[in-house]
Amino acid sequence: MTLPSALDEVIEVLQRLPGVGPKSAARMAFYLLNTSQDFNKVLSRSVGELKEKIKICKECFSVSDSEVCSICNDETRDKKQICVVERALDVISLESVGEYRGVYHVLGGVINPLEHSGPEDLKIEELIERIKNNGVDEVILAMNLTMEGEATALYIKRKIKDLNIGEIKITRIGSGLPMGADLGYADQATLNRAMEGRTTI
Amino acid sequence: MTLPSALDEVIEVLQRLPGVGPKSAARMAFYLLNTSQDFNKVLSRSVGELKEKIKICKECFSVSDSEVCSICNDETRDKKQICVVERALDVISLESVGEYRGVYHVLGGVINPLEHSGPEDLKIEELIERIKNNGVDEVILAMNLTMEGEATALYIKRKIKDLNIGEIKITRIGSGLPMGADLGYADQATLNRAMEGRTTI
Repeated sequence: MTLPSALDEVIEVLQRLPGVGPKSAARMAFYLLNTSQDFNKVLSRSVGELKEKIKICKECFSVSDSEVCSICNDETRDKKQICVVERALDVISLESVGEYRGVYHVLGGVINPLEHSGPEDLKIEELIERIKNNGVDEVILAMNLTMEGEATALYIKRKIKDLNIGEIKITRIGSGLPMGADLGYADQATLNRAMEGRTTI
Repeated sequence: MTLPSALDEVIEVLQRLPGVGPKSAARMAFYLLNTSQDFNKVLSRSVGELKEKIKICKECFSVSDSEVCSICNDETRDKKQICVVERALDVISLESVGEYRGVYHVLGGVINPLEHSGPEDLKIEELIERIKNNGVDEVILAMNLTMEGEATALYIKRKIKDLNIGEIKITRIGSGLPMGADLGYADQATLNRAMEGRTTI
């Protein structure tokens, strides 16, 4: 069957979005076809101008409306506590909890030799500069719990130690069983971490 | 946390698409932020012009590039066999199998009193006209296997019977266990249908 070309194009393009397969792309395209043209115009305009409107914060490299993002600009946030994450999306996830009152540092990825991504491709030098200049108390390494995330955490830890500027607490986000988990379904690596990381109650 | 407004808007808009929640909308928005501006331009343009470019086939009411869709225009398709479906998307699903050689009729929904959708809101009159004028051999009722789909099928069956134009085969798509299914996991209504609809082999 030959689909109308305009519909075919929309389905084709939507399929390139993360997590969207042929079936959901078709469902979305038909939704767009049946919804108001106003909605399509808003989607069209907002996607078209997204990249030019978003700035990268010059302090933490997260997404921002202006030169410096709303978190780095917030007087009530503790500038002496830096949480290092892989991506700006991770900042949003952590902020959704609403507990953390320090600031962030977005690396822009992890060290991954297979994908030719080395330390020089990440904002590690910039992190070290921030630590040197701002009298930081704690650096929380919140990279993902993957091989690459672990390796990047170790690399950064060593870099900070090399600074030799005394009392900086370096921590890694907690690892173990997720909330609501059942021991019977957990994998061995997670169980091992959960035992190693047990806490006194 | 206040997200940059342009990003917030894209996430907000993407969430209104079917099957997209807050998390996947955020993931898509960051994908759009990190991908090439060319891709965003294509997405923006194709969505913006979708509704004006797509026509509705005047024969079967499916989506089309022109006045009459590619299926209704196809000389090799059997015009005496009409498969009635709820939505144009269903035509695409059935065509993906590639077996059916008749034509379609898109109702534009089902009879659903709770949503104030009556027979007059659907293309039922148009279907009856097609059947009257074209000497149809078979009408396949391929509405979804829901309460509303079943009711709509019965309603249309009665309407065709009322025509009193003799030999028209009226069929309903087969119902029972889906391929690959396990009897132990099937619901009672489906098992009941599977037993009722058993075929000689």
